[in-house]
Amino acid sequence: MRIEILCTGDEILSGKTVNTNYGHIARRLAEFGLTVQWGTTVGDDRDSLLAAFGQAAARADAVIVNGGLGPTVDDLSQEVAAQAAGVELVLSGAWLARMEEYFRRRGRVMPPNNRKQAMLPAGAEMIDNPIGTACGFAVTLGRTRFFFTPGVPSEMRRMLDEQLIPRLLALSGMQGVFRLKRFHSFGIGEARADEMLNGIEALAPDGGVKLGFQAHFPQLETKLAVRGLDEADIARKLVPLEAETRRRLGSFIVAEDEGTLEGVILDKLRDRAGSLSTAEMFTGGSIAARVAPMADSGRLFRRGVVARDLAELRNAVGLDDDGAANGISPATAAAVARALRDRSGSSHALAVLIDLDEGADRLEFGGTICIGIASGNATVSRQARLLGGRNWVRLGAVELGLDCLRRHLLGLSVDERIDFEKR
Amino acid sequence: MRIEILCTGDEILSGKTVNTNYGHIARRLAEFGLTVQWGTTVGDDRDSLLAAFGQAAARADAVIVNGGLGPTVDDLSQEVAAQAAGVELVLSGAWLARMEEYFRRRGRVMPPNNRKQAMLPAGAEMIDNPIGTACGFAVTLGRTRFFFTPGVPSEMRRMLDEQLIPRLLALSGMQGVFRLKRFHSFGIGEARADEMLNGIEALAPDGGVKLGFQAHFPQLETKLAVRGLDEADIARKLVPLEAETRRRLGSFIVAEDEGTLEGVILDKLRDRAGSLSTAEMFTGGSIAARVAPMADSGRLFRRGVVARDLAELRNAVGLDDDGAANGISPATAAAVARALRDRSGSSHALAVLIDLDEGADRLEFGGTICIGIASGNATVSRQARLLGGRNWVRLGAVELGLDCLRRHLLGLSVDERIDFEKR
Repeated sequence: MRIEILCTGDEILSGKTVNTNYGHIARRLAEFGLTVQWGTTVGDDRDSLLAAFGQAAARADAVIVNGGLGPTVDDLSQEVAAQAAGVELVLSGAWLARMEEYFRRRGRVMPPNNRKQAMLPAGAEMIDNPIGTACGFAVTLGRTRFFFTPGVPSEMRRMLDEQLIPRLLALSGMQGVFRLKRFHSFGIGEARADEMLNGIEALAPDGGVKLGFQAHFPQLETKLAVRGLDEADIARKLVPLEAETRRRLGSFIVAEDEGTLEGVILDKLRDRAGSLSTAEMFTGGSIAARVAPMADSGRLFRRGVVARDLAELRNAVGLDDDGAANGISPATAAAVARALRDRSGSSHALAVLIDLDEGADRLEFGGTICIGIASGNATVSRQARLLGGRNWVRLGAVELGLDCLRRHLLGLSVDERIDFEKR
Repeated sequence: MRIEILCTGDEILSGKTVNTNYGHIARRLAEFGLTVQWGTTVGDDRDSLLAAFGQAAARADAVIVNGGLGPTVDDLSQEVAAQAAGVELVLSGAWLARMEEYFRRRGRVMPPNNRKQAMLPAGAEMIDNPIGTACGFAVTLGRTRFFFTPGVPSEMRRMLDEQLIPRLLALSGMQGVFRLKRFHSFGIGEARADEMLNGIEALAPDGGVKLGFQAHFPQLETKLAVRGLDEADIARKLVPLEAETRRRLGSFIVAEDEGTLEGVILDKLRDRAGSLSTAEMFTGGSIAARVAPMADSGRLFRRGVVARDLAELRNAVGLDDDGAANGISPATAAAVARALRDRSGSSHALAVLIDLDEGADRLEFGGTICIGIASGNATVSRQARLLGGRNWVRLGAVELGLDCLRRHLLGLSVDERIDFEKR
């Protein structure tokens, strides 16, 4: 089946907004064995949209159109879709009611221009958007099915998974079922992971498993895409590969599938009725921001302390500042973690300190990261040097700190060498 | 002049590689008043490339083709360009010599497959690539000029600036310049902003100004795109519209152009040699994470405190917990801010407390947000109720807290009603 993606909007066309939707849609479809063969980008312009619809209809079996469903005059997707289909726009009473309810729940009256979002081409199939006011829909132009989706990424992503992919799989008449097994790792780059997993696809009896990688710096996602006749066939193919992947990537795997590094940490703490406090410098709240929102209660995440200055950080956790004697070191990180744990009464405390290079940001700009973890029975620390610019170092420090905590909670070595580390 | 961008390559088409080249080319051209009207993405596939060349030739005056100039067999741009032009590929002795020199300078012998990069369509105009082995070139298909550029971003960017833009400006014979004026606001939705600015385009003498919006929830970006003969003409058109936009959107404007809400806050604090500390609950470090990384020193951002539990938060800023007497309220937020300011010695302290609804996450899930700000001469507080799900409430609370601080620093009302608020 030939599938195309048509992205609309002046912001995307002009490059003012980076088009992340295209890549997400293409990757997601590939995970289900659906291949995108053509991509088009046009602006909020009647003639361009009409031409793009016509040309896509001449090439493809299915087209995903993204954007142009907003309430303002420059959003033209429904209007031009109706024109291309040779039908009128008709008001969807069902969607209008949904929007009025949406605003009423927020204690607001729906602005008049939102009514436009309930105008759909006559005969269009309505596609639900449970988290926004932009109504998705599908129409057939010539022999081609067009699916219209909102430009807001969160709304598009949910609509894609829940509404579009089942429809596309049905259209494609593809036999069997698909499964995507995902491993999230920290500390190894794509090239090294590729080496570590060399030849693994061959372990699947009679094949049918595709290995792939997706870098989400600083994490790496390793994917096993499996196609089989049924769930049993999938399991038969996948089980040996899953086991082998876990064996080869080992402690570098931080989570699987929908799991996250921070989620694993909180689960471990919950299991042992523990709690966490954090102290951070250059990472400026980013570590707390990863963990705290996921904590289901104040018992699980007790306290986060953020300071850009070491003396201030020591003061905030109740350590005296005896000046020069207290430079940033693994010992200082351990002392801060210990003091924070005592003060906050949490079972575990994580401190991530950074000694940054001097001077302007540049590719070889780096920092020395000192991590301290205090728990009832232990205080551990670790040091690492990261290079690659301020933002790169910040992202790496957040991940390294959280990963050390994960390793400590799981009884793994906290100082396994990682690829990003310079010694 | 109609300009199109044609991006090639399986990695781009599949979304495996994020396409940063498209946006760079489109933005760079816009800076020179050149507008991209259409974007196409196809894979390393003969038929797709041939079709894409033909369709672009039928629409555009100039097409920038990116990618497919590499030495490997899957790089097809020269070959398909020759096919589309109905000419042979001929060896460019000049480029072959350049490549051999390129490798010699690196102490290497040119691998035989690089010779492919010197094969250009007969009659093509060679376009220099001073930093790589992929030779750019231009051919005319029908009435359309096609410019072929390397996929390697650094090589493409240099070729674009030094070689393509002068050629495109010459082709367009275009007079005049282009400017994009941006306003960032918080507290008004796109539909309401559209109403508030209704008819503003008509204020530009003899037109030439286009109004546009871009939602970056919870902020909204309002854009005025202006084309004029020269800078003076741009100013003549823009000045009255800028003034009117500021007047109509008023205090909701948090920053303009490259400015940010957090940047404005830090600038104001810097101006008065002030400093900031933050205390947050449900926003779990997100407020600190917005401000701290931008603070150029520990003097500007002194301390951030994060706790999910009010008693813990009060304890962390040195307030006794007298239990039930201290529910979440504007008064409590003010007290926390005051105590944090005293304890950290910062000139300003911001406290954002949230009393969350009970139960599972849902669209109407909400929270009551209490904001307290303490500065030398004042303690102000504000309360707001937000609905829309946990994450929506969290994002809204972060922005509302920072915006209240901005308003306080600028001497504006901190409790102006916002669209996202339920009373």
